[in-house]
Amino acid sequence: MTVMTPRQRFLAACKRQPVDRTPAWVMRQAGRYLPEYREVRKGYDFMGMVRTPSAAAEVTLQPIRRFGMDAAVIFSDILVPHAAMGVDVRFEEGEGPILTPVVRTRAEVEALQDFDARTATGFLGEAIRLTRQQLGPDRAIIGFCGAPWTSASYLIEGGSSRNFEHAKRMLYDDPATFARLCERLVDNLIPYLRMQVEAGADVVQIFDSWGGAFDARTWRDVLLPSTRRLVQGAKDLGVPVILYVNGCSQLLEVLVETGADVLGLDWRIDPAEAIRRTQGKVALQGNLDPCVLFASPEVVEREARRVLESFRHAPGYIFNLGSGILPGVPVASMEALFRVIQADTVPMGARA
Amino acid sequence: MTVMTPRQRFLAACKRQPVDRTPAWVMRQAGRYLPEYREVRKGYDFMGMVRTPSAAAEVTLQPIRRFGMDAAVIFSDILVPHAAMGVDVRFEEGEGPILTPVVRTRAEVEALQDFDARTATGFLGEAIRLTRQQLGPDRAIIGFCGAPWTSASYLIEGGSSRNFEHAKRMLYDDPATFARLCERLVDNLIPYLRMQVEAGADVVQIFDSWGGAFDARTWRDVLLPSTRRLVQGAKDLGVPVILYVNGCSQLLEVLVETGADVLGLDWRIDPAEAIRRTQGKVALQGNLDPCVLFASPEVVEREARRVLESFRHAPGYIFNLGSGILPGVPVASMEALFRVIQADTVPMGARA
Repeated sequence: MTVMTPRQRFLAACKRQPVDRTPAWVMRQAGRYLPEYREVRKGYDFMGMVRTPSAAAEVTLQPIRRFGMDAAVIFSDILVPHAAMGVDVRFEEGEGPILTPVVRTRAEVEALQDFDARTATGFLGEAIRLTRQQLGPDRAIIGFCGAPWTSASYLIEGGSSRNFEHAKRMLYDDPATFARLCERLVDNLIPYLRMQVEAGADVVQIFDSWGGAFDARTWRDVLLPSTRRLVQGAKDLGVPVILYVNGCSQLLEVLVETGADVLGLDWRIDPAEAIRRTQGKVALQGNLDPCVLFASPEVVEREARRVLESFRHAPGYIFNLGSGILPGVPVASMEALFRVIQADTVPMGARA
Repeated sequence: MTVMTPRQRFLAACKRQPVDRTPAWVMRQAGRYLPEYREVRKGYDFMGMVRTPSAAAEVTLQPIRRFGMDAAVIFSDILVPHAAMGVDVRFEEGEGPILTPVVRTRAEVEALQDFDARTATGFLGEAIRLTRQQLGPDRAIIGFCGAPWTSASYLIEGGSSRNFEHAKRMLYDDPATFARLCERLVDNLIPYLRMQVEAGADVVQIFDSWGGAFDARTWRDVLLPSTRRLVQGAKDLGVPVILYVNGCSQLLEVLVETGADVLGLDWRIDPAEAIRRTQGKVALQGNLDPCVLFASPEVVEREARRVLESFRHAPGYIFNLGSGILPGVPVASMEALFRVIQADTVPMGARA
């Protein structure tokens, strides 16, 4: 098979078309495990770095220079839209984000502001344009946003949460207000993704980092309508859509119903089972346990080979971890990982 | 069908025998959501209360007096054996436990002390005996311990953990030391459960609170041998064994292989799927979302009825939440819950 550019390879895998080898990226690849990231980070607080296009583009490009991933995921945060909707978003060192005021009543939902993505979040578009300039045309750029549940839960809880008491109370006690909150989020997230695509994103990933907090019935009843609308809105922009749900074992069938092109898998689900249960309707992404990267390079190589082999018969497959890379991972682990992936030149797909 | 005592009902359900109605208890039912618990708690720090038989028995009995559960789970902590093995276990208010020193090398594993359950943890036996005296013979008493993974992870991480970086590094990089740690734990946990049964526990539950951190292949390779040995050791004591794994969706088949009599389900798994995938080989327990108890009594009643109905055709079933009751739950929610359960007098089981 002809050698493809990384961007061609990545987009082909999303569309379940043949590829010359497995495309790969790593969630949170622009992150604290990289010394050059920590160096740039010294000059900014977290949201300051997100809002400074030159800094965001620089850290977006850092992992590509080192490891040559097929796609650059733009350095940003899923809470950027929350801030644009008028909520104060603060990151305290070593803690999760703190959002004020919390959004728990119908009036508080209605008080959120709609935003114009090009003005309120223009820094992100600019970061994507700067990234494209320096990256060139041959690699894919991934834009992203949070899924309705994950986005809503931050607003309702006022931050991250272990049990989602307030958010679940709202959806059990006042499902209409919960649905309205999701509607208002999706109304704003679709133009936000459009702005990213217009700036140069080739693919978008929707993160439902906390979607695994539900059984499939509840996810279908409460979250499918708004998530499907967001996925469809993103697809209408003409780019492939990856839906990533951490804790997806019990949800695969309903996630397929969102219409996403690719399902991002966490590390708990067996690859063969994921392939079987998604019935060829989506490409798959994942699912190396991120903690494997704390093991020796030999173990990293062995586990990476095992994951590659496990997805050999997927209809389309993008290598990734099962969740974001953790801060303390040694760079040597990432080197071992990409050594294995880039040496694995078996073409995939379209063997039927 | 003849009315059964709560103890008969509970034990029959564990053994997949017919019952006159669904037995019920709630994980962490002796806990902070009860004002009378908080009153007793004022006089002790957490481990002090665990180690004072009269206080432990008193809080064990409190929820039975209010709600009339079929079983009293003894008030204790899964880290009691850790302290008995020579590790310092501290609970800071509002934080998780802190264990020192951490156990990460072969030498540190070997340095753990074996303990005599009757002397080192005699307070727990005494608490069970006091509970039986006050509870009478008609209700079941549940003893418990942690599963090998959950127990080991506290030792390796030095507390609770989000990602289990150190524990997973050990099991990837040094599986022999990890296996040896599990072996040492099981060697001590079996006599610890024996002491509880000799003191009066009718059933034991093994908590794998963090077992959901793995895919089924890894759970089978790394955790099945030691977990099966613990389950079998407990069964040899002549009592039914409940194995509870939070995050069990991807693990049901391998959990059945442990030989447990009952699988405790979290709230993410669909009841019908759990019944199908366990093929009648185990009774089931669970799986109401604990956050439902933050909703209105009407929602609590509706969801409790739905759960009862969903397990109507299970081979054996014990009502419970999908994880421990949360501290802020209103007492009125528990009242609504037990109103529904105790009014549901449909006999279950042995309809074939």
